[in-house]
Amino acid sequence: MNIRKVLKLIGEMLKLEGVCMALPFICGIIYKERAGIHFALIGVIVFMIGIMLSSTKVKDARFFSAEGFVTVALGWVFLSFFGALPFYFSREIPNFIDALFETISGFTTTGATILSEVENMSKCMLFWRSFSHFLGGMGVLVLMLAIIPTQGENMFIMKAESPGPSVGKLLPKVADTAKVLYVIYVILTLLSILLYFLSGLPLFDAICIGFGSAGTGGFTVTNDGIGHYAEHSQVLIATMTLLFGVNFNIYYLMIMKQFKSAFHSEELRTYITIIIIATITISLNTLNFYNGVYLESLEKSYFQVISILTTTGYATTNFANWPMLSKYLLLVLMVIGGSAGSTGGGFKISRVIILIKSAINQIYFELHPNSVKIVRFEDKPIDSHLLRSVTSYLLAYILIIIVSVFLISYENFDFETTFSSVIETFNNIGQGLGRLGPTGNFSIFGNFSKVIFMLLMLIGRLEIFPVLLLFSSKTWKREG
Amino acid sequence: MNIRKVLKLIGEMLKLEGVCMALPFICGIIYKERAGIHFALIGVIVFMIGIMLSSTKVKDARFFSAEGFVTVALGWVFLSFFGALPFYFSREIPNFIDALFETISGFTTTGATILSEVENMSKCMLFWRSFSHFLGGMGVLVLMLAIIPTQGENMFIMKAESPGPSVGKLLPKVADTAKVLYVIYVILTLLSILLYFLSGLPLFDAICIGFGSAGTGGFTVTNDGIGHYAEHSQVLIATMTLLFGVNFNIYYLMIMKQFKSAFHSEELRTYITIIIIATITISLNTLNFYNGVYLESLEKSYFQVISILTTTGYATTNFANWPMLSKYLLLVLMVIGGSAGSTGGGFKISRVIILIKSAINQIYFELHPNSVKIVRFEDKPIDSHLLRSVTSYLLAYILIIIVSVFLISYENFDFETTFSSVIETFNNIGQGLGRLGPTGNFSIFGNFSKVIFMLLMLIGRLEIFPVLLLFSSKTWKREG
Repeated sequence: MNIRKVLKLIGEMLKLEGVCMALPFICGIIYKERAGIHFALIGVIVFMIGIMLSSTKVKDARFFSAEGFVTVALGWVFLSFFGALPFYFSREIPNFIDALFETISGFTTTGATILSEVENMSKCMLFWRSFSHFLGGMGVLVLMLAIIPTQGENMFIMKAESPGPSVGKLLPKVADTAKVLYVIYVILTLLSILLYFLSGLPLFDAICIGFGSAGTGGFTVTNDGIGHYAEHSQVLIATMTLLFGVNFNIYYLMIMKQFKSAFHSEELRTYITIIIIATITISLNTLNFYNGVYLESLEKSYFQVISILTTTGYATTNFANWPMLSKYLLLVLMVIGGSAGSTGGGFKISRVIILIKSAINQIYFELHPNSVKIVRFEDKPIDSHLLRSVTSYLLAYILIIIVSVFLISYENFDFETTFSSVIETFNNIGQGLGRLGPTGNFSIFGNFSKVIFMLLMLIGRLEIFPVLLLFSSKTWKREG
Repeated sequence: MNIRKVLKLIGEMLKLEGVCMALPFICGIIYKERAGIHFALIGVIVFMIGIMLSSTKVKDARFFSAEGFVTVALGWVFLSFFGALPFYFSREIPNFIDALFETISGFTTTGATILSEVENMSKCMLFWRSFSHFLGGMGVLVLMLAIIPTQGENMFIMKAESPGPSVGKLLPKVADTAKVLYVIYVILTLLSILLYFLSGLPLFDAICIGFGSAGTGGFTVTNDGIGHYAEHSQVLIATMTLLFGVNFNIYYLMIMKQFKSAFHSEELRTYITIIIIATITISLNTLNFYNGVYLESLEKSYFQVISILTTTGYATTNFANWPMLSKYLLLVLMVIGGSAGSTGGGFKISRVIILIKSAINQIYFELHPNSVKIVRFEDKPIDSHLLRSVTSYLLAYILIIIVSVFLISYENFDFETTFSSVIETFNNIGQGLGRLGPTGNFSIFGNFSKVIFMLLMLIGRLEIFPVLLLFSSKTWKREG
């Protein structure tokens, strides 16, 4: 393990975090909040630590997949630790575990909270909380790649941090790909903020909710969440969030005017199909819940389906009281998640497609052993290497859920709460069922469980393997 | 598809079922019950239909894996249909769907019931109900193989009906293997009945509960189930049930005095380890539930762990009120199930071992791509064919659960009830959580759901593929 190189890169990342803290500081100045000072002080300290680490002398340039994984995993841990300090030192979240939980939830774009009354927080803290969604959404290291000139290590970092089974290299140079992705991301975010503002949200709310939908995070700034805003704003927020659940490669294709191949994407068509079918099914199933007012049930289910499938976790209705069929559908959507290469979490639509197609093929093979069929995804045959890696992912995914639910079940909550607590943190949704529905929050859990949830959020956001690598002894062995 | 050959074999099977109905008829005579007459009449009719079908002229002897699968799947459907008639015509279960549910639950050794008060039933009906567990436990077709001289088709039937990923051929001839297995099975069953009787159970109860533990079924003959009997009887029943959850090949090895290889079995050691760890964990977790009386919590958890892991589904306590951690552990045990080659259902311990070992290996490979390790099960390397077939099984298993829970969720019960209804029927346990705990039953569901449950019980007992084959159009195409 080339630990010096890893530390150097983490240093670069911390410098970036330090600079980013200028924004909540400015926010504090605007709202004349004393709490804003923490961002100035901590920002400077984080920046200094960043300079120290980034000046590490690197003897050799070795940088492979393992180094990429470790950089990303350790980087996110450092980032979250320092990001939590303003909440803690300002005493706005006096328990450090809670502050760390909230920060990890922010950077991993989960949006799970331990706060019951967000309106008690100062504006600059709320800003930092939502801003972390924006930073985490496209990947903090991808942002770094787009800004800082590096050599060689880029592809391994990109692979480790980007969501989905395969990373499309849009341009020959990774740094250029990162730049293109970030430009699209920033433009879409600014557009969301503008539209939210025009639709009637206060500017501060428009910015924070914009960050939340961009990163498919889910933190809000009012006690009653998105239900606080007018109905046309709710539909607008859902629609913009829908856009952030699309693979960003599609937007690149559209910019390049390759509309045909953009709309031909199997993942995009599946994504849209899932939204349509789930919205219609749930709107019919919840019709009685909304006293037969079809427009209302359609609106609520449209919002909720997008919010859950993209793993955002906003809510405009207390869906924890919906009929079982609708709740179950939401649970399935939670697991499916967004598209690969989007800011959404979860298992990812492309993986689901690959697995279901292979499963049907394998079942068919078991029944008719003499028949040979080739399975295709996005017009390419699924090779054994890809299938093997998706299957490994599934097995690791299932094992982690089984063990985590066991650890959380010690809290002795009901089935619905226990299961959904694990599902919603691991898939980075932040909104669940039972006692974790739109009216609940994570303050009901003890510290041990909160630590498990933090690990789950990180493991889920970084797609399992980078974080597991930190716990493998072989990773840390010197190799020559 | 050689449909004539399939029909001929189903005919043989129905002849056997007709003969078996003599036993509940005799039971009716002993207890002077009028309902017993139904078994005589229906038994004769079933036997006649069997003679008709078995005299089908078979033109060619072709009999491959697909024929084996279809024979087993269709055979079980016929068997259940005719087996349900006595319940229906005697009006003791006046709804035919319910009668069919109860019969399928019996033959598949699930033990799920739609009856709230079993003591209202006549003795001969209760006998038939429990006897179906005994018949289904080792496989009705395996029994047929042991009795009727056949040629060629044996191995395919054996493969299709026996639980677990691989069928051990103990002896060169399949018919001899079937005979050995059945002799061990019958001796163990008679031993159980004798011991239960000696421990104080009335003879009728001892016989019925003996059948239930032999087939790892779960039907009882008293309204309060196994809790009706003395505590030492309860521990005895659990211990005998434990023996039926062991791979029967182990007993064969022991008879052949190959003790070393018998006890060396990885599956056996895993089975025992799971029981010990689960029993201790649950007994500690339920200590408060039993007011700190450790002997009681140990006894109850020992009983329940074995009853659930072997997929029997007997209960001596209302575990639906246990703390969440214990309930969750039971749910995990439900899915794991018994050993391959035992009468237990579920995913099977050998499959779980193969999957977990491969998963850990694959995760390790993802982390350290240059390392190559060979995974072994029972001292043999797991080849890609076996792994592929276990993975297919897992994918089919997951898909079936996801779809079934969706269909059942329309009933609008709580999460715990909805999930456990699918888990307990699909894994042939018959005892669940929520409203399906020891005090509940399946009468709360509508007919549509009951049909789903029947399919799930059959699919689970026959390990998915034989039943799916019935729904594949290619199966029914003429091939020359």
